[in-house]
Amino acid sequence: MSRRPLLLLAALVCVCSSMLLGAAEAKTHHHTWDISYQYKSLDCFEKLAVTVNGESPGPTIHAARGDTVVVTVRNKLETENTAIHWHGIRQIGTPWADGVSGVTQCPILPGETFTYRFVVDRAGTYLYHAHYGMQRVAGLNGMIVVTEPAGAAVEPFTYDGEHTVLLGDWWHKSVYEQATGLSSNPFVFVTEPQSLLINGRGTAFNCSQLGAPTGSACNASSSCALPPAAALFTFVPGKTYLVRIGSLASLSSLSFEIEGHSMTVVEADGHYVKPFVVRNLFVYSGETYSVLVKADQDPARNYWAASHIVGRDTTKTPIGKAVVSYSSGANGLTTPPPTAPPAGPVWNDTAIRVAQSRAIVAHPAHVIPAPARPDRTLLLLNKQARVDGHLKWAINGVSLAFPSTPFLVSMKRGLTGAYDPRPPPDTYTAAGADGVNATVRSAAYRLGLGSVVDVVLQNAEMLSGGNRSETHPWHLHGHDFWVLAHGDGEFDPAADGGRLVLDGRDGQDRPIMKNTVPLHPHGWTAIRFRADNPGVWLFHCHLEAHVYMGMGVVFEEGVDKVGRLPASIMGCGRSKGLRH
Amino acid sequence: MSRRPLLLLAALVCVCSSMLLGAAEAKTHHHTWDISYQYKSLDCFEKLAVTVNGESPGPTIHAARGDTVVVTVRNKLETENTAIHWHGIRQIGTPWADGVSGVTQCPILPGETFTYRFVVDRAGTYLYHAHYGMQRVAGLNGMIVVTEPAGAAVEPFTYDGEHTVLLGDWWHKSVYEQATGLSSNPFVFVTEPQSLLINGRGTAFNCSQLGAPTGSACNASSSCALPPAAALFTFVPGKTYLVRIGSLASLSSLSFEIEGHSMTVVEADGHYVKPFVVRNLFVYSGETYSVLVKADQDPARNYWAASHIVGRDTTKTPIGKAVVSYSSGANGLTTPPPTAPPAGPVWNDTAIRVAQSRAIVAHPAHVIPAPARPDRTLLLLNKQARVDGHLKWAINGVSLAFPSTPFLVSMKRGLTGAYDPRPPPDTYTAAGADGVNATVRSAAYRLGLGSVVDVVLQNAEMLSGGNRSETHPWHLHGHDFWVLAHGDGEFDPAADGGRLVLDGRDGQDRPIMKNTVPLHPHGWTAIRFRADNPGVWLFHCHLEAHVYMGMGVVFEEGVDKVGRLPASIMGCGRSKGLRH
Repeated sequence: MSRRPLLLLAALVCVCSSMLLGAAEAKTHHHTWDISYQYKSLDCFEKLAVTVNGESPGPTIHAARGDTVVVTVRNKLETENTAIHWHGIRQIGTPWADGVSGVTQCPILPGETFTYRFVVDRAGTYLYHAHYGMQRVAGLNGMIVVTEPAGAAVEPFTYDGEHTVLLGDWWHKSVYEQATGLSSNPFVFVTEPQSLLINGRGTAFNCSQLGAPTGSACNASSSCALPPAAALFTFVPGKTYLVRIGSLASLSSLSFEIEGHSMTVVEADGHYVKPFVVRNLFVYSGETYSVLVKADQDPARNYWAASHIVGRDTTKTPIGKAVVSYSSGANGLTTPPPTAPPAGPVWNDTAIRVAQSRAIVAHPAHVIPAPARPDRTLLLLNKQARVDGHLKWAINGVSLAFPSTPFLVSMKRGLTGAYDPRPPPDTYTAAGADGVNATVRSAAYRLGLGSVVDVVLQNAEMLSGGNRSETHPWHLHGHDFWVLAHGDGEFDPAADGGRLVLDGRDGQDRPIMKNTVPLHPHGWTAIRFRADNPGVWLFHCHLEAHVYMGMGVVFEEGVDKVGRLPASIMGCGRSKGLRH
Repeated sequence: MSRRPLLLLAALVCVCSSMLLGAAEAKTHHHTWDISYQYKSLDCFEKLAVTVNGESPGPTIHAARGDTVVVTVRNKLETENTAIHWHGIRQIGTPWADGVSGVTQCPILPGETFTYRFVVDRAGTYLYHAHYGMQRVAGLNGMIVVTEPAGAAVEPFTYDGEHTVLLGDWWHKSVYEQATGLSSNPFVFVTEPQSLLINGRGTAFNCSQLGAPTGSACNASSSCALPPAAALFTFVPGKTYLVRIGSLASLSSLSFEIEGHSMTVVEADGHYVKPFVVRNLFVYSGETYSVLVKADQDPARNYWAASHIVGRDTTKTPIGKAVVSYSSGANGLTTPPPTAPPAGPVWNDTAIRVAQSRAIVAHPAHVIPAPARPDRTLLLLNKQARVDGHLKWAINGVSLAFPSTPFLVSMKRGLTGAYDPRPPPDTYTAAGADGVNATVRSAAYRLGLGSVVDVVLQNAEMLSGGNRSETHPWHLHGHDFWVLAHGDGEFDPAADGGRLVLDGRDGQDRPIMKNTVPLHPHGWTAIRFRADNPGVWLFHCHLEAHVYMGMGVVFEEGVDKVGRLPASIMGCGRSKGLRH
């Protein structure tokens, strides 16, 4: 070996060491997940669930801001593919790790292994779930908790302990049965959920309600009794808890409360909120919140934690129930609370829900200033439509079909014929974009890289049911957005447009950034974001039945700036045979 | 245009025309199939079925010997892949069209289209079905009828009309539920079937047996009454019918009979049989038969066609029932037969089943001479085993796992690491091959191209249940084999080997060729085939639960002689990025 290569080697060692030193504070967290079907009795009714390492929900991922998370997913399903989305993680520089089959990757086939690697670049509460067909509803979901690194800027609040609360709803029919009904003509609705789950447990289900026969899957035995089967949260008297709450409900808008305790909202979707106090928190599918709860009640008894459906008239779904227990109390963990569970808010009082949405503004010390004006505005009408007799959701007359080749691959590689090259209309006032003449298409909006985009989501009435209008929680991949306004009725660009101009004067509440926001019944919601993350990103209603029926749009921005695509995201559709 | 290209064009037209003329007698049959889930009530219980163009069973494919069949499969399942096997078609020169996921192709993903193109080179009765996980049991199945071309050599029998009879069994649980139980520890058996189907109808299911609650999927309404819901076969008095019978049962060995009518067996798996008469025909999963039935009974009444489970003690599964009606009778098509359905044979009389198996020999005028001796003999022990606590089926101690990269691609392209390169043992007397120390492996036997191979299938007792031993119908892909012998007890090479030497003297019955043959309880079955079809071929127990639990082996022969692989079979596992 000559001297020169040795020197080169030494230099390399130096560079690598300093890189390692520079990253010494940021850790890499490796997880290996086997995805498989397992028989589970989450609400006492035994049915198959898609599990992570045998469990549903899957494990909570813990990391600190700046860390890298590596999840090696092994698909152990027999005939079914999968893909996992890291909800709220912006995937800056890693658009191929967003986990949306048909948008950012080919699905992971049975027997195959796929590795997700991404940086969690902001503290907060996030989620993960399957993003393939309606598979999320089968149980593949969980939470991601990103904390500030040790010694980093302190959060604008203090607490003594933490709890995580994942809310959901649950059906006894398989997602295949649900999806087949939704895509049938005549349409078969999935029905309201049989149970509401808190951390994957729904003990309220009553076998007799099913009229279940002997020997059926319904098991009302002791394993289903309230504690120990319910989720249980322990409080030490006098302490303050940060309770991280997220919802991955399939269909339900939820209200969460802890009997007798008030909650101070301090975080939403990874951004600090100007604190406000509530007795119950409305949580829409895809949203996360952190609330502070003081253990200031009588420690001698237990309390209900409860979730209720709002926005839909349901009498068949029991309340979701968990138990809060004071550790020092004499009551023990297995004693149900002495009271009836809270009744929850009135299901159809939209005004109180809109009021909460409007109360969620940026913490004054943590404002991320929004651009004053957009470069482009999309006015997106959310409307049901009939296409060839099938009920669909259409946005400006276009119902989204996920293509068999991922948009990211076909757009980056210029594969023609893999998607519809005609972008959907920017407004619903455009000819033919009203939903009556809807079409099913695989199309994407092309956004200027770095441009500022406003989206005004406009709600409408359902095709049937009089003047009924539903709540749609919209979730944007790859970005956070500023929540500009929640308005009533139909958005009027002339009259309402001014409300979207931010003048930034002192003392005014500033818009918070989120990744999921509700579009309330008969109203409109305006958001703004900067299209600064090269890639292709889904923006969709987070209700699983709705996105399954086409309620989403796709944004492309700077796809030519995306780095070399990993071969592992290819192999399907027109990406067969591509190596990078 | 210069004169030279014109001449070239003229020459091309000539060549093409003559090619077309040369192929004028052989037709190409194009089919386009959408594979989707649909709600079906095949036996009055509504559940999801995997359908072909909305139906289960799928359409019968009709073609003449020498024709080409082209089936364009569009996977409209949401999250589930598929692959379709053309059972009994040898795929000479087209090993990539055999339709076995993990062996001959990558699965077809949702949203993708895959085209199967193959020649049907022998008249006879064949089958098709999904060959991916346990998907076949979900309803994707049907028949293929190949007739002699007009003017070709006449069959050694005559008849006036034809009927097709596809036998099956049916569960109310999904294949996911079945498969999850089979792979669980502790093992959960699929149970005996709820119904036996004849041409996809099983009217005998009784909702009250389920203890079904009000409003459940069980529908005992008029749509489930015996005719019109049952399969119905019409006879004209005095005429003779060729009844083509096949079984794609998941678990059940079946007996089929037509009340009051005898049947003359004339074809088995596409080969002419030395005719023999039966009252009931034993049909094992994967087998096909043609029988002649004379309409010689009282035309004034209707008759039962019935299937019964044999070889398993089942009292819970009702008889499979259909109706035979004489068209000229006064009874009408909607009148049930006046008699009770036939009781069927004694379920545990193995001797009569072995006797029928031995009666199936080649028609003297249609003998295909078998080689006198093999070049190699495999002695394959069929045994249950426990691997890491999971119940498996192992062959010589190896339980087959289907690899995520198809054997055909990895072997042809030399992809290392895609399968276990150590072939399984040739005999169970080899050290460690007894099933007690079984391993799960993706391995293949390598056969010399053109060599003659004997396989002696050796049955064994179950792991539990005393001296219980089951019937296993073994099916070979890519070949027909000569059925040499059905023996009792343990095969003794010294004593029994002589029975496998064919001396070809006159007057002796000659072995028939088949593609599926039963291995009877406590016995052995010897077959011989010529490994003359370059490719990679599955040989397996055709019971779906058994092959799912590893009861199969893989044969490679002359894979280097296989032509250029189509890109469409790639994209999964290590074949990602391959273009041919």
